[in-house]
Amino acid sequence: MTDRGPDERIVLAIHGGAGVIARETLPADVEAAVRRDLADALTAGGQALLRPGGTSLDGVEQAVRVLEDSPVFNAGRGSVFTRERTIELDAAIMCGQTLRAGALAGVTSLKNPISAARTVMERCEHVLMIGAAADRWCAEHGAEVVPPEYFHTPNRLLELEEKLLAAAKTGSEIEPRTSSIAALTQDHRFGTVGAVALDRAGNLAAGTSTGGRSMKRSGRVGDSPLIGAGTYADNASCAISATGDGEFFIRVCCARTIAALVEYQGLSLQRAGEEVLFRKIQPLGGAGGVIILNRRGEAAFPFSTLGMYRGFLTADGRIDVQIYREDSVP
Amino acid sequence: MTDRGPDERIVLAIHGGAGVIARETLPADVEAAVRRDLADALTAGGQALLRPGGTSLDGVEQAVRVLEDSPVFNAGRGSVFTRERTIELDAAIMCGQTLRAGALAGVTSLKNPISAARTVMERCEHVLMIGAAADRWCAEHGAEVVPPEYFHTPNRLLELEEKLLAAAKTGSEIEPRTSSIAALTQDHRFGTVGAVALDRAGNLAAGTSTGGRSMKRSGRVGDSPLIGAGTYADNASCAISATGDGEFFIRVCCARTIAALVEYQGLSLQRAGEEVLFRKIQPLGGAGGVIILNRRGEAAFPFSTLGMYRGFLTADGRIDVQIYREDSVP
Repeated sequence: MTDRGPDERIVLAIHGGAGVIARETLPADVEAAVRRDLADALTAGGQALLRPGGTSLDGVEQAVRVLEDSPVFNAGRGSVFTRERTIELDAAIMCGQTLRAGALAGVTSLKNPISAARTVMERCEHVLMIGAAADRWCAEHGAEVVPPEYFHTPNRLLELEEKLLAAAKTGSEIEPRTSSIAALTQDHRFGTVGAVALDRAGNLAAGTSTGGRSMKRSGRVGDSPLIGAGTYADNASCAISATGDGEFFIRVCCARTIAALVEYQGLSLQRAGEEVLFRKIQPLGGAGGVIILNRRGEAAFPFSTLGMYRGFLTADGRIDVQIYREDSVP
Repeated sequence: MTDRGPDERIVLAIHGGAGVIARETLPADVEAAVRRDLADALTAGGQALLRPGGTSLDGVEQAVRVLEDSPVFNAGRGSVFTRERTIELDAAIMCGQTLRAGALAGVTSLKNPISAARTVMERCEHVLMIGAAADRWCAEHGAEVVPPEYFHTPNRLLELEEKLLAAAKTGSEIEPRTSSIAALTQDHRFGTVGAVALDRAGNLAAGTSTGGRSMKRSGRVGDSPLIGAGTYADNASCAISATGDGEFFIRVCCARTIAALVEYQGLSLQRAGEEVLFRKIQPLGGAGGVIILNRRGEAAFPFSTLGMYRGFLTADGRIDVQIYREDSVP
């Protein structure tokens, strides 16, 4: 990873989840929808970011909104169901210049949790708000509210019913912590979404949004809305958004640890990400991926799964979308 | 801080909150109650820790339980009220050997959230559970359930009513983020509780429990239950429990950053804690304190407030309780 010229700098990077994504098994129509929606997110985020006065927070928010609105990703519309057949959404956004952050966990009525998290960041005296009280506060502060059915998609419900049936047959606890890699291979083909951005003023931002882990218990919160776990941005190091098996990402404080390895150990973004994914999370039994961006416009997209939906936008407007491991490095 | 002999090693350290605590204004009866309950917590935690087979998790859990049961600290019984006159409790516990963790946020019915958090760590496939679903899961797994009134104390209710009245008079938003130091001086005289411990096997653990910030909105979660913010333990570096103005501790990922400074920069525990408290949190406008313990039995108790309720137990059974800044360093 070398210094990029001003035009080749990456200014926006996104992910749409990581998992066992192989060319031979991903249906062509799904791949086409994923590629289209990732490109649309980069376009929308890029427009917000690159317009006069646009900030990295604008780029992150607008890119993530597109992915939340798309039914193919596990965030906003199309989120996975809990075991109790509810949909509970988590999101966070963070500003690398000020270290201000806003986060929501367990909300059920907000069409775009990433935008609501930004409102928390900008207008609430608290950083993290949870549950029905968070839904209410956001609604009172302008968030778009939708009925629970808005988030439902037939594929997700079918997925849940099949798993509940399989679990009932074996009589086993569902997804014990130790079998997370196996679970991830089946559950996270379409995952958590996130974005990291760099604006003209040189400020970083990061944001993540998710429906959480498929078959999670009601009340479970993963890494996405937790500052330092699934989401972190600090101009002193880098901006990070993670996807994968949240419990493990929480335990190693994934995003903050990556930033610390960059800031305190001088590791490259790629090496810092790989250190956490392969030497901290994988030994515990977890898998996933991260996107990382620094103020020089360098980005890294390491993942320990077979594939990760991801893409980036350069300062000169080039968009690239990648899915498989064998796709070229940016 | 030098290597301690085997008998002088600190094996358990606790805190009961940080704030403007000055000798001339702390009522004698309050000071006596605080000192008695801190000593009781060290005794109970020490018994659990030092008995045959006792673990650092046992020591942390039992010490914190005593502080939760005491009405003079802001955790369990005696917790502060939200603006909506509810009591919403947060807690987390973490094992430094395995990096396993359990955490609860926004629970309302569990007598000892620290013990329930440990049950989450040991028996739930998730790390962080929130709200009523978390109360239910813990009750189903043996947690002691109490009615909401159990947590109420007259002093806390009086405190709330006075503040609501003052806020109504000025017509101002209550405790805007920028005036946190001022708020802290009035609100956190009795604060969050926490413990860090080191067992004979050389394993660290950390735990934190709180009623949160006085006058918080319902649904607000602070740093205490967030792994890497208010609570962290890793045998590779140290165990940490924080107290103070949670929003700022979340934004700098306080506990994980301290551990990173120790692990990656080689800072002493004291310097790592001061770096985060004085060079990261204080410039943002926040104040508080942390307790830090490593595998050599070295401990540090840095704080940026006037005082911090704190104490420690050595391997040879010596107990020391401290309140003011001028109290001797261990």
